[in-house]
Amino acid sequence: MDFNISDRMKHIDPRPLKDMFAYGVDPEIISFACGNPDASLFPNRELAAIAAGVLEQKPVQSLQYGKTNGYGPFIETLRQRLLDVQKIRCTVDELLVTTGAQQAMDIVSKLLINEGDTVIVEEPSFIGSLNAFRSYGANLIGVPLEDDGMNVEYLEAVLKSHQGKNSFIYTIPTSSNPMGTTMSEEKRRAFYELIKKYRVPVLEDDAYGELCFDGIHPTTIKSMDTENLVMYIGTFSKILAPGLRIGYVCADAALIDALSMAKQSSDLQTALLPQLMCDGYLHTYDVQAHIRRLQEAYKEKCDLMLECIDRYFPKEIYYTRPKGGLFIWCDLKRDIDTNEMINRCLAEKVAYVPGYAFMTDISMPRSTMRLNFTAVSKEQMPVGMERIGRIIREYEK
Amino acid sequence: MDFNISDRMKHIDPRPLKDMFAYGVDPEIISFACGNPDASLFPNRELAAIAAGVLEQKPVQSLQYGKTNGYGPFIETLRQRLLDVQKIRCTVDELLVTTGAQQAMDIVSKLLINEGDTVIVEEPSFIGSLNAFRSYGANLIGVPLEDDGMNVEYLEAVLKSHQGKNSFIYTIPTSSNPMGTTMSEEKRRAFYELIKKYRVPVLEDDAYGELCFDGIHPTTIKSMDTENLVMYIGTFSKILAPGLRIGYVCADAALIDALSMAKQSSDLQTALLPQLMCDGYLHTYDVQAHIRRLQEAYKEKCDLMLECIDRYFPKEIYYTRPKGGLFIWCDLKRDIDTNEMINRCLAEKVAYVPGYAFMTDISMPRSTMRLNFTAVSKEQMPVGMERIGRIIREYEK
Repeated sequence: MDFNISDRMKHIDPRPLKDMFAYGVDPEIISFACGNPDASLFPNRELAAIAAGVLEQKPVQSLQYGKTNGYGPFIETLRQRLLDVQKIRCTVDELLVTTGAQQAMDIVSKLLINEGDTVIVEEPSFIGSLNAFRSYGANLIGVPLEDDGMNVEYLEAVLKSHQGKNSFIYTIPTSSNPMGTTMSEEKRRAFYELIKKYRVPVLEDDAYGELCFDGIHPTTIKSMDTENLVMYIGTFSKILAPGLRIGYVCADAALIDALSMAKQSSDLQTALLPQLMCDGYLHTYDVQAHIRRLQEAYKEKCDLMLECIDRYFPKEIYYTRPKGGLFIWCDLKRDIDTNEMINRCLAEKVAYVPGYAFMTDISMPRSTMRLNFTAVSKEQMPVGMERIGRIIREYEK
Repeated sequence: MDFNISDRMKHIDPRPLKDMFAYGVDPEIISFACGNPDASLFPNRELAAIAAGVLEQKPVQSLQYGKTNGYGPFIETLRQRLLDVQKIRCTVDELLVTTGAQQAMDIVSKLLINEGDTVIVEEPSFIGSLNAFRSYGANLIGVPLEDDGMNVEYLEAVLKSHQGKNSFIYTIPTSSNPMGTTMSEEKRRAFYELIKKYRVPVLEDDAYGELCFDGIHPTTIKSMDTENLVMYIGTFSKILAPGLRIGYVCADAALIDALSMAKQSSDLQTALLPQLMCDGYLHTYDVQAHIRRLQEAYKEKCDLMLECIDRYFPKEIYYTRPKGGLFIWCDLKRDIDTNEMINRCLAEKVAYVPGYAFMTDISMPRSTMRLNFTAVSKEQMPVGMERIGRIIREYEK
């Protein structure tokens, strides 16, 4: 090939995500690997009616070029909803609509990371975000993620030793991906005090905050943010539908202005019809009632998966008990490389994501795995979990 | 602000695009500044029917997560259409769906440009693409664009003097933005011979190829490409609707694989509903008949604008006579800075894009302007053109 690949893209190892996608190709595989919401709960008929109405009545707004920041009325809807749901007070100048939350990771990285800059992340953390940071040459430093969130003492030690080199801290405080843990209210306050003390920007990824099973959204870091240090990222992928690719950033107005410029050179603007569909859904239907249905359905599936772990997996393993979101994290706590074991599982038509994929250093073997409980049906779940349990026990022998 | 902007983003001057968007805010302004297609020709009722059908019948395909490369059946449709329309023979592995053509510029840049690499561009060229290259630290070298395309002798001199430093050559061979010129068939052959000789990759932006007024698509460089050196970029923004944000890249399969990885960290995947809508439109309606209607309507508007130039502008100016596309380029050929004159025009409620915006060095005053002939109505066009002509004459005094 006559093409020279840039240095920045060499920081990404294509294998983990390629493997993850490969697990999904065979329809016979019971896959706990993806991060898919339950497609049977998509409000597709309501969205069909909205899409048709919007295209017929607002052809210019839905089909012509639009503003890079997003569709004006939708931004105003987002502003009001952020105040009501996430208790975040902002102006429309502090909002930018993105092509999914992933694009927010990309443009924040494009704008704020120089080659060699440090990005502090929870360990483990979401591979899609880690790869976005890597693709701009970031040096990733992991802070251990505990059952109640990031270890803040460790974080302070990192902040001290890396002062002046930090682009930002990346956190998924609620129902984290991949662990499913939620940062406690005490830690949120301690975390924000540290941020203020060291004046380091924070990228708060709140993809799962609205999916807490008890319906109570934990205090967002952004809502405590008196210093404009937090870039808050939200998405409609988990509460409405990921195929729409609608996310957003809420941050300091001057930063939004610069991010908008980064977005402009990335994809000019987010597709308009999906923006108008989200906006239309929020105004026409009771989205909070829809979200409550998701919370109930996902809690039921999460409980079933926890039961399956108790029933089929060895007793000594560690696993998280999520209060929301899409994922459970298991540590087999023995000398099993889950990236090796996955091949045995695929042969038995079941899949998870090996834990190494979510680490800052993906070269080390890990005994951990991420299990998604939303995409597989309740009938298939015990079948798949029994298979994994059986294979773990085989490895023990 | 506690945020440090990356070095790469400092290569973009935000002013030209900010100014361009500002011109569009006042609805009283007759704006020849944007690159908008004629919204009255959007097939919005057909798209409404398709969107509703797709969401009702294919909820998973249109709303769930999908593959980064694009929706499978749509990729197959694109492959067949590329063969029929652009005479490009490729496999589905050589195709990647992007979030508009702009994203193709972005991910190609992300993948292939190291800080300081040379990107060779036509001078003038499309500011959106130039900014994408700049945002990855490219050193832009301009090759004069002539009435029959890029000056190939000049290009060879640049290729000789910059050997080994070139990431790629960027060209809009047909109905270029901003000039509206089309590369002759002879130059296309000479151009491709040079590419082969120097083995330098080419980014061929064919956004306007299907909008040739005579209905004849010039020979795409990609269709001559026996060496897999050309990355061909197409879009549905001009033939269907820009708000859908559907573009695509056709290139070497190994390169598509790497581009797909760059896209994955950028926005994971392009929104699915717009992909299924394009696919549905191509299968349900006669898109070639729709495109013929666009060609006729745009030819009529282009002819009207040329008449207006002859009637209202001074005789000595240079202007292009496009065979297609959306733009006419004027050089006032006198000591008038069009970036200064725009303020006078805005006060008179008429706008164009000052020529400096399309140059590799935007710091120099220019006597050129880009005029869009598709967005303004036939009634408004003479009114706006008369105003610009009057203001030019005032400057002459």
